[in-house]
Amino acid sequence: MNAPTDLTQLVPAIDQREVPDALIDALKARFATQCSTAAAVREQHGRDESSFSVPPPAAVVFAHSTQDVADAVALAARWDVPVIPFGVGSSLEGHLLAVQGGISIDVAGMNRVLSVNAEDLTVTVQPGVTRKQLNEELKSTGLFFPIDPGADASLGGMCATRASGTNAVRYGTMRENVLALEVVTASGEVIRTGTRARKSSAGYDLTRLFVGSEGTLGVITEVTLRIYPQPEAISAAVCSFPSIEAAVRTTIQVIQLGVPIARVELIDRHTVRMVNQHSKLGLREEPMLLMEFHGSPASVQEQAQTVQEIASEFGGNAFEWATTPEERTRLWTARHNAYFAAIQSRPGCRAISTDTCVPISRLADCLLDSVEEAEASGLPYFLVGHVGDGNFHFGYLLDPDSADERATAERLNHTLVARALRLGGTCTGEHGVGLHKMGFLVDEAGAGAIDMMRTIKRALDPKNIMNPGKIFAL
Amino acid sequence: MNAPTDLTQLVPAIDQREVPDALIDALKARFATQCSTAAAVREQHGRDESSFSVPPPAAVVFAHSTQDVADAVALAARWDVPVIPFGVGSSLEGHLLAVQGGISIDVAGMNRVLSVNAEDLTVTVQPGVTRKQLNEELKSTGLFFPIDPGADASLGGMCATRASGTNAVRYGTMRENVLALEVVTASGEVIRTGTRARKSSAGYDLTRLFVGSEGTLGVITEVTLRIYPQPEAISAAVCSFPSIEAAVRTTIQVIQLGVPIARVELIDRHTVRMVNQHSKLGLREEPMLLMEFHGSPASVQEQAQTVQEIASEFGGNAFEWATTPEERTRLWTARHNAYFAAIQSRPGCRAISTDTCVPISRLADCLLDSVEEAEASGLPYFLVGHVGDGNFHFGYLLDPDSADERATAERLNHTLVARALRLGGTCTGEHGVGLHKMGFLVDEAGAGAIDMMRTIKRALDPKNIMNPGKIFAL
Repeated sequence: MNAPTDLTQLVPAIDQREVPDALIDALKARFATQCSTAAAVREQHGRDESSFSVPPPAAVVFAHSTQDVADAVALAARWDVPVIPFGVGSSLEGHLLAVQGGISIDVAGMNRVLSVNAEDLTVTVQPGVTRKQLNEELKSTGLFFPIDPGADASLGGMCATRASGTNAVRYGTMRENVLALEVVTASGEVIRTGTRARKSSAGYDLTRLFVGSEGTLGVITEVTLRIYPQPEAISAAVCSFPSIEAAVRTTIQVIQLGVPIARVELIDRHTVRMVNQHSKLGLREEPMLLMEFHGSPASVQEQAQTVQEIASEFGGNAFEWATTPEERTRLWTARHNAYFAAIQSRPGCRAISTDTCVPISRLADCLLDSVEEAEASGLPYFLVGHVGDGNFHFGYLLDPDSADERATAERLNHTLVARALRLGGTCTGEHGVGLHKMGFLVDEAGAGAIDMMRTIKRALDPKNIMNPGKIFAL
Repeated sequence: MNAPTDLTQLVPAIDQREVPDALIDALKARFATQCSTAAAVREQHGRDESSFSVPPPAAVVFAHSTQDVADAVALAARWDVPVIPFGVGSSLEGHLLAVQGGISIDVAGMNRVLSVNAEDLTVTVQPGVTRKQLNEELKSTGLFFPIDPGADASLGGMCATRASGTNAVRYGTMRENVLALEVVTASGEVIRTGTRARKSSAGYDLTRLFVGSEGTLGVITEVTLRIYPQPEAISAAVCSFPSIEAAVRTTIQVIQLGVPIARVELIDRHTVRMVNQHSKLGLREEPMLLMEFHGSPASVQEQAQTVQEIASEFGGNAFEWATTPEERTRLWTARHNAYFAAIQSRPGCRAISTDTCVPISRLADCLLDSVEEAEASGLPYFLVGHVGDGNFHFGYLLDPDSADERATAERLNHTLVARALRLGGTCTGEHGVGLHKMGFLVDEAGAGAIDMMRTIKRALDPKNIMNPGKIFAL
């Protein structure tokens, strides 16, 4: 296994702090069976979907309430021990790894939808509620929560990483859709960051400060979200293109015309091939856009027609339409299975996923050069993209025992990020910085902005116990 | 004049800090004629559209560049002297008043549109560019910037107060439409808070931290905004209602159905009367909704029809439609002239403007009880509302020499804010906290959240020189 070695290179501050027996005793006294030090439980909470593995946390507290979280944080604070919040473990960036030791607070058991305010189009949930669970519970109300990062992530985790996904082009990201949070601070205090009002100018935007803070400023214990009326009509389509460039140029024009498209996803031919093999489908092995239109029946029809005309100009063909939920699900299978189909296409591999996002006018430049480099490298990869937002992911499929392959993947990633930054973009559109992108963040934000982040972190978490060692080195 | 006395009650920390001659000399040496200590200039920079007056700043620096701002802040920091950024002076909450003395940095001269990225739907401007100027410069591109707080405010000021206005129901507020900022920090350093990418998960959301920070964390020197394609079709309508309740219930249903209405503004019968007098119009003196629909011709027609059906259910009548720009302007006259028509309806009066925003399901409750109280008080008032967002403004028109009237207005405001907070709302939807709402913010956010804001402020501005005495007492 080369992973730990590589991680040490990537993350200079692997520095296990001591977790005193006195803290473990105090946690067991307070939490009884809700606190576990079993190796299997700790292992499970010491990793995520990233390609890293490091020493697991010393204990896991299974929180059932805000008070549980507050008490666990207060105890950890008393002994200066790190705290890592854990939802469902679907991070791709090493957010959940105990790089400095400490305890994990698992909020998966805080999984109640606390209130649905259908009239106000808001909902308040505990952080362990997953997005699919929420939509299941909303079904009867005619409302839905659109943010879809692929994985059935917890909403607390989605707040922490400022997640987005396929619907963001129309509905925005967690940044736009979180109205308010309840948070346990680094000292174990409980605060609220906002109200249910749709807008507010009442002081510093603490909600947005916590959204994307990756557990480094506090533990999210309650989330108030915007929800939306289910569209009267939904129509989905797939369309094949002669080249990635043609698909991307179609997307750019759709966005620039202001078509309120709900989803526009790129899948490259490798991914189509992997999905065909995985799901026994017979899709044309060409670059493909998957699109979805939401609105009134007339508006959906109008949008679809506009997009079809644009696509035709760029050689798009084989439009396939779906309007029933079942047909839509079938069409979206390719997208939803992409990650696992890719992983399974190379048994035993691990994926390093890139997450650059650029202004849409630079998308073709950024993508095409990176595709060329990936092809030249010989490393198997897949490519999917939320191209309406300028965000895309290469997944480099590497043999975890091959230092060479990891080095190649890292080199491709570095080149891609440097290109995205040059083009006015960001190293991470939706996965967060975690461990893997700390260096990139310095390049992107600059020393002054990172210093400001550090200053905020030091002020709000003077003992550096909230998920330390992530986003930036202190 | 009772204002200073009242202000002292409202703002406990009126505490003029010394501005040493050495600083003034240094500013004059660096800025020559760009620095003024003339009484008239200082007076003009020591007030805004609020009902307060306090000692003006000791000097005004007219900045022409980021470097000018950085140098002025660095000099002020060296002598521990407060800095108050100034755009066009349209704040309603006392943001620009030198309650602790210091210098004003006027950025009105930083009024260049730096780049228009039409393909990406972004624009980068200097902070002194006003929203009307921006839209004038964008005209030929077929794009526009939708945020419209009424006044022709500077975009830097709109960032600082997290402004919104009539289009927010569809296009969001400054929170959703600022992509990135350049900021001069309290030590005079220049940082950037983001990129032009539409979305990002790259570290703490410094952009959103500065949006709404009211000049207390730094001076905004560059703003990157989202812009939008001008809608293919725009249609506006006014509709009279038998009661405020009927107008509000119509709005609630429109929003809940997900109609993508671009504007929906309430004007009460007093305001209609004032506007009729002021602009020699003959509008029915009944509560009125002004609405605007943006989209394709078909979509606009569809939206308008849906809304007309809902309005009819609630007794809405006298729909008047406008599709040409000239007709639309005429219809919107009532809304745009409301504030000044109200002020002129009582010569010599000053307005205390409320700014509560509640979840839309509570809007009728909040509004109707407050209307009853305002009627009972005998104080002249007007009422306008961005009701699609649950945000509305009473303007109490008071004789500035009458302590009784000011006390009545403050009592009405207190009762209204308390009610809005009870109903899950906020004390300020779009004007900011400034001086007037510091007490309300404590009630709304709670001691813990205010402490967190204070901690951030102390960490980023250890000398407390950035617009001190605003938002919260330190």
